[in-house]
Amino acid sequence: MSLVRVQNFSVSLDGFATGEGQTLQAPFGHAGERLHDWMFATRWGRAMLGRTGGSGGVDDAFARQFADGIGAEIMGAGKFGPPGWQDDPEWKGPWGSNPPFHTPVFVLTHRPRPSVEREGGTTFHFLDASPAEALATAREAAGGRDVRLGGGPTMLRDFLAAGLVDHLHVVVVPLVLGRGVRLWDGLEALERDYDVESTSSPGGVTHVTFTRRAV
Amino acid sequence: MSLVRVQNFSVSLDGFATGEGQTLQAPFGHAGERLHDWMFATRWGRAMLGRTGGSGGVDDAFARQFADGIGAEIMGAGKFGPPGWQDDPEWKGPWGSNPPFHTPVFVLTHRPRPSVEREGGTTFHFLDASPAEALATAREAAGGRDVRLGGGPTMLRDFLAAGLVDHLHVVVVPLVLGRGVRLWDGLEALERDYDVESTSSPGGVTHVTFTRRAV
Ligand SMILES: NC(=O)c1ccc[n+]([C@@H]2O[C@H](COP(=O)([O-])OP(=O)(O)OC[C@H]3O[C@@H](n4cnc5c(N)ncnc54)[C@H](OP(=O)(O)O)[C@@H]3O)[C@@H](O)[C@H]2O)c1
Ligand SMILES: NC(=O)c1ccc[n+]([C@@H]2O[C@H](COP(=O)([O-])OP(=O)(O)OC[C@H]3O[C@@H](n4cnc5c(N)ncnc54)[C@H](OP(=O)(O)O)[C@@H]3O)[C@@H](O)[C@H]2O)c1
Repeated sequence: MSLVRVQNFSVSLDGFATGEGQTLQAPFGHAGERLHDWMFATRWGRAMLGRTGGSGGVDDAFARQFADGIGAEIMGAGKFGPPGWQDDPEWKGPWGSNPPFHTPVFVLTHRPRPSVEREGGTTFHFLDASPAEALATAREAAGGRDVRLGGGPTMLRDFLAAGLVDHLHVVVVPLVLGRGVRLWDGLEALERDYDVESTSSPGGVTHVTFTRRAV
Repeated sequence: MSLVRVQNFSVSLDGFATGEGQTLQAPFGHAGERLHDWMFATRWGRAMLGRTGGSGGVDDAFARQFADGIGAEIMGAGKFGPPGWQDDPEWKGPWGSNPPFHTPVFVLTHRPRPSVEREGGTTFHFLDASPAEALATAREAAGGRDVRLGGGPTMLRDFLAAGLVDHLHVVVVPLVLGRGVRLWDGLEALERDYDVESTSSPGGVTHVTFTRRAV
């Protein structure tokens, strides 16, 4: 059965998944790269950047599940570009000509536009649809494989609140960001439907996995 | 040099250190006992309740530092009793005749009252004073030993914001409480002054320690 998965989703100790003041130069606002330093220190993360080296431990073991068995991604408009990208008809996302997804990607936005095909198997489709409808569309495109929810926090919260997530991998980074967009708001008692496991790493972060309980 | 320490301070994934609706029967409101289940599953925690058994692993190793080298505690009015205790001249705290502190305890309140001596070495003193003033008083009473900050979150936040804390032991419990009193608000970039370490335990929680960097 195809699962709905969240991988490598980083939050601060105070629950922020992005900082304040998102721009093209600073996609995470005042948080800078600090929420994802752990990932780019791994072998998998460095390879993503075309580099060698990196750690091969538990951070790497989690990070590299990013693409395993994934057939499609759904992301929010806030991940696809900085505020205002919808006004730029040429905007194709911040990832260059060969984005790291290599599957269909469904971008949730209230201002949809025609699909954009990129190199390496990534095609962006734009949807104005409820979480459940978007998921049905992405599932069909995934051809039996899993669907990854890419974030940001606003769209992820909606999918969690709607009970649509089977596997949630959150990485708690010991920073106090203070401002930005929070993940956990409105999700009281989320843990009840999941088996929860916490694994801290020598890299200093803690991987918290929520695995939906068998019914 | 005498340190200011916080031990066994539990917060949810979303940063709440207590739930909503604190009463005498439910000192943590809707959170119930869930923030401290990890502690009462340890050998040290069970001994506190007069029981035997319990785990002897990393949770226990952290928990039992509670009293080591401590000469005084400072706590907030919200820990000393449920809302309204100041209207009851007979109120002596929720811990019975032999409270678990065994040192002088300074209760911060805007409505101070005469000191109360209990069995086992615990005396409650009531202070209307700034964090720095309260600390000076507690340090003197501690006679060269460390001062523990007992919480709750409101007073702890004030002491952290004032830069008065040397060692902070926070236990992240993988619950989404959704409401209550948050610890991290107003503490942006707290990590900058500390070495931070995260240790998850087989019991399912994560111990995050902030140790103030040598200047
Ligand atoms: N911490 C991490 O691991 C992580 C992961 C991914 C992204 N991020 C960061 O998160 C930030 C973006 O997150 P965010 O919370 O601001 O935004 P987001 O969740 O990416 O996107 C939210 C926006 O998507 C559109 N949208 C959402 N649901 C929709 C629906 N059902 N139908 C139509 N449109 C819908 C709306 O935009 P419109 O109304 O404008 O169309 C909405 O404002 C960025 O800074 C990104 O870098 C962090
Ligand atoms: N998670 C944990 O490990 C942990 C640890 C300890 C306690 N708790 C829980 O935390 C809750 C209490 O926390 P809280 O944040 O509500 O309250 P709190 O921090 O215990 O106390 C705050 C109150 O103390 C008084 N106060 C604080 N600073 C003062 C100052 N400088 N001068 C004079 N008075 C001062 C004020 O009360 P008045 O103005 O009313 O006098 C203030 O409202 C309880 O539910 C308790 O069970 C949790």
